[in-house]
Amino acid sequence: MSDIEIARRAIKKPMKEVASRLGIPEDALEPYGRDKAKLDGDYVKSLGNHKQGHLILVTAINPTKAGEGKTTTTIGLGDALARIGKKTAIALREPSLGPCFGQKGGATGGGQAQIVPMADINLHFTGDFHAITTAHNLLAAMLDNHIYWGNALGIDARRVFWPRVLDMNDRALRDTVVSLGGVANGFPRQARFDITTASEVMAILCLANDLEDLEQRLARIVVAETREGKPVTAGDLKAAGAMAAVLKDAAKPNLVQTLENNPVLIHGGPFANIAHGCNSVIATRAALALGDYVVTEAGFGADLGAEKFLDIKCRQAGLKPELAVVVATVRALKLHGGADEKALEKEDVGAVERGLPNLLRHVENLRKFGLPVLVGINRFLTDTPAELELIETKCAEAGAKAYLCEHWAKGGAGAEALARAAVGTIDEGKAAFRPLYADELPLAEKIETIATEIYRASGVSIAGPAKRRLKALEAAGYGKLPVCIAKTQYSFAADPELRGAPTGHVLPIREVRLSAGAGFVVAMAGEIMSMPGLPRVPAAERIRLTENGEVDGIF
Amino acid sequence: MSDIEIARRAIKKPMKEVASRLGIPEDALEPYGRDKAKLDGDYVKSLGNHKQGHLILVTAINPTKAGEGKTTTTIGLGDALARIGKKTAIALREPSLGPCFGQKGGATGGGQAQIVPMADINLHFTGDFHAITTAHNLLAAMLDNHIYWGNALGIDARRVFWPRVLDMNDRALRDTVVSLGGVANGFPRQARFDITTASEVMAILCLANDLEDLEQRLARIVVAETREGKPVTAGDLKAAGAMAAVLKDAAKPNLVQTLENNPVLIHGGPFANIAHGCNSVIATRAALALGDYVVTEAGFGADLGAEKFLDIKCRQAGLKPELAVVVATVRALKLHGGADEKALEKEDVGAVERGLPNLLRHVENLRKFGLPVLVGINRFLTDTPAELELIETKCAEAGAKAYLCEHWAKGGAGAEALARAAVGTIDEGKAAFRPLYADELPLAEKIETIATEIYRASGVSIAGPAKRRLKALEAAGYGKLPVCIAKTQYSFAADPELRGAPTGHVLPIREVRLSAGAGFVVAMAGEIMSMPGLPRVPAAERIRLTENGEVDGIF
Repeated sequence: MSDIEIARRAIKKPMKEVASRLGIPEDALEPYGRDKAKLDGDYVKSLGNHKQGHLILVTAINPTKAGEGKTTTTIGLGDALARIGKKTAIALREPSLGPCFGQKGGATGGGQAQIVPMADINLHFTGDFHAITTAHNLLAAMLDNHIYWGNALGIDARRVFWPRVLDMNDRALRDTVVSLGGVANGFPRQARFDITTASEVMAILCLANDLEDLEQRLARIVVAETREGKPVTAGDLKAAGAMAAVLKDAAKPNLVQTLENNPVLIHGGPFANIAHGCNSVIATRAALALGDYVVTEAGFGADLGAEKFLDIKCRQAGLKPELAVVVATVRALKLHGGADEKALEKEDVGAVERGLPNLLRHVENLRKFGLPVLVGINRFLTDTPAELELIETKCAEAGAKAYLCEHWAKGGAGAEALARAAVGTIDEGKAAFRPLYADELPLAEKIETIATEIYRASGVSIAGPAKRRLKALEAAGYGKLPVCIAKTQYSFAADPELRGAPTGHVLPIREVRLSAGAGFVVAMAGEIMSMPGLPRVPAAERIRLTENGEVDGIF
Repeated sequence: MSDIEIARRAIKKPMKEVASRLGIPEDALEPYGRDKAKLDGDYVKSLGNHKQGHLILVTAINPTKAGEGKTTTTIGLGDALARIGKKTAIALREPSLGPCFGQKGGATGGGQAQIVPMADINLHFTGDFHAITTAHNLLAAMLDNHIYWGNALGIDARRVFWPRVLDMNDRALRDTVVSLGGVANGFPRQARFDITTASEVMAILCLANDLEDLEQRLARIVVAETREGKPVTAGDLKAAGAMAAVLKDAAKPNLVQTLENNPVLIHGGPFANIAHGCNSVIATRAALALGDYVVTEAGFGADLGAEKFLDIKCRQAGLKPELAVVVATVRALKLHGGADEKALEKEDVGAVERGLPNLLRHVENLRKFGLPVLVGINRFLTDTPAELELIETKCAEAGAKAYLCEHWAKGGAGAEALARAAVGTIDEGKAAFRPLYADELPLAEKIETIATEIYRASGVSIAGPAKRRLKALEAAGYGKLPVCIAKTQYSFAADPELRGAPTGHVLPIREVRLSAGAGFVVAMAGEIMSMPGLPRVPAAERIRLTENGEVDGIF
């Protein structure tokens, strides 16, 4: 059965029952359809002072075409913790429509470790991303409108930084000219569209403490500069109030359930390659107040997702994760080891061995943040005992016990060993989380620290304009912000072809973008784009409604 | 008190109680938050063969800056019908975010004749418009993606008709160049963005009978032509299935309530100037199956909204309206009569008399469709007895009784006289609805018929390329479609400055666009634009969250 078929056959519990597993009262639920709900804003606020659960981060090796199953493992581990009697909250990110229509497909787990309603969550869900798109584009429209009606703030049209966004893979919008057609349409200028997940509004929603903080962050967004280089903000354009109003409901965490009816808070954005790629602080804090154990995930490989989770989200929000789980598969390690894509089902211990350094380096990296690390091997039917044993041995040598996980086939029951190990490791109390670098480090050195310590590059090459921009940002008082490196997810390096654990590469930074409201500086590495394209055969071609009106073709 | 303050103090009934007034069972409701719901798709389908209520169309004189209150009157009349004991369903259109952030403000009625939750309905509501935006832009992305990956269908990039859309007033996007930046971004071409309400997908959603018809219509959308002039459709691009899946929930009517807790089905799109501007056929049919009386509205003046409601929607769906109510205000008639905007509060019987021909012409026009007509005078506090009496006298002479309506101040109680007259007129059974023109009339003659019979133009001037396009559309088999004229709402003519009841004007048609899926041909008259702009001081500058997280500043 395909994932969507399994999901359709799920026996869902009423939302009030799902909520009650975390002690959430029914009147704190705002229903969205019959099997989705938002948590009431006042209720979420009221959770602030409650007890704190243990925070577990699930991350992964660099992704390959074989698929790793990070979200699947996050769900499986959460279900497993519930099975062994722990009050558990799973805190996930919401899927983007771009990859759903494109290559990657949905993002709600797989096999017996899924969240439901699968199609709804992958399509519009409760409208959060559409609200972000709207708030973002409202600011863009107000900016061009301000210039149109006399430009009292003196915006330099050449120095407009604020793009427009769509939750769509649409390469035609990467580089455009707007306001053509004469006087009535404004002043022509070059402009870009990003995918919504890359919007600073998404990052702000995910990093804000509450609605007040959200509005203040929105007001701080720097959208442009004057000819004199003075920043112009969303606050200057009087846009922050309406943007916050537009985001009022999007700021509330969403509740859904796993196939095993365990509660999942799913809130905020993916895309750890071009964004910071974590679920929201509001949802993570609510989960920590409600659950004794909270399993969350960060996007793509640990070089991107986990680094940003730890250096940006946990730093800003004061979160103290106690364990990292790195997900790997035999098949993906083979690809990192240079195996042929078509030969992944054949035993190839050599390829696994050559690919293992990718996994082991992520393990090493995570320990630099003061975190104990476990490895979860997301089992495929074609994995052989020799391949699995090799991984377990090498991980043990590196100080990280590896656990075979069969949640894809068996649900939570398949990840109980990992769950018990997680509880045991946390009980040891050895976690001592610390970010990788200090706030005070100059921006260029922060980039260099991540590049050398995490990506293991031999150095960084920052293009002239980017170098000058970093200096200017420091002069303007943004030097203490963390950096968010936009980089391909497929490699430790900026070159997606460099699998495994490359060394000797140089990290090329071509452009720097300020996210003053989100509170970080984005450094664009290599050819990474903030608007993806669709593949030759988009997944959308297969998506359709069945005769009884159900969605089919999301995978 | 402002409208939003009145709305916030509304004592709302639980949705199941609101639904029960129309006999809708609780299990047919899909809740969206606590005070919005969608009607279950299967339930809506099951209504198909039930009894049919009486359909009343509320329309208006040409709008002015003074405001007429068409939606307000629709709500007031519905509440009044309920007060006099009639089982009544109100069927409205959903507001667009563009005017909400721009000049016009919200679109949920006013005073004591409003629907709630006011801010929610005006912002994202249940996400229908965002779903339409997404489905529309998915098709655009798949089109450019098809060209990018080899263009197997042979699309002529100069003949791409399909724009992108946003639910935003953003003049900068009216005329753009996309796909700049080199090989990876596609082939540069000129392209436009429309506002979502003008999307053919919106029209399709509003005109479709059900999900199957929706998908078939989507597949028929003509997005481009080949070099040989062969049409390329959404079906050819394999996009219709995913678009229908994206619209699955948007196709379900939404249920909200008036301040008097009467049920309102609100579904589908506004903007009768650049679109056909009617609520959905699905919702109207459901309302007719559920209520003995159904009050619906069509956008702007009767020259646009009512004509399209009757010639496009009722023609396609086989609906038989039995009564038209034309809404007017003393203040607006004064403006049509040439009064000064700042002197509307002073008695000026002469200005009312000079403005009355606008109202009387709409009355005359509606009778050409075989409909009995009543006039509803939406009372303002500054209206004087002499002004009101003049309107009543002149309307009576024209064969349409006028009723003073005070629903703004008094709710349904203020519109009881109109409600009793509506019931009485329908009981007389004199309605004999017929569209204005026959399907068989050539397209250019259809345009001419509307121009001369409704707009009272002396003729039509069709630009050369538009004329050739009309011929080509007839040759391609689209000649039997009705036409949807895009024209300013402020005048019978294409010139917004021509108030009152102008004659001798010529209707200039500059461009023709095919909506093969919606089933009509759009003729662009004068300078009307399918993407509005924001005013000098956008309403968005005033929208904000209050300290307790409620939206303020929507008016």
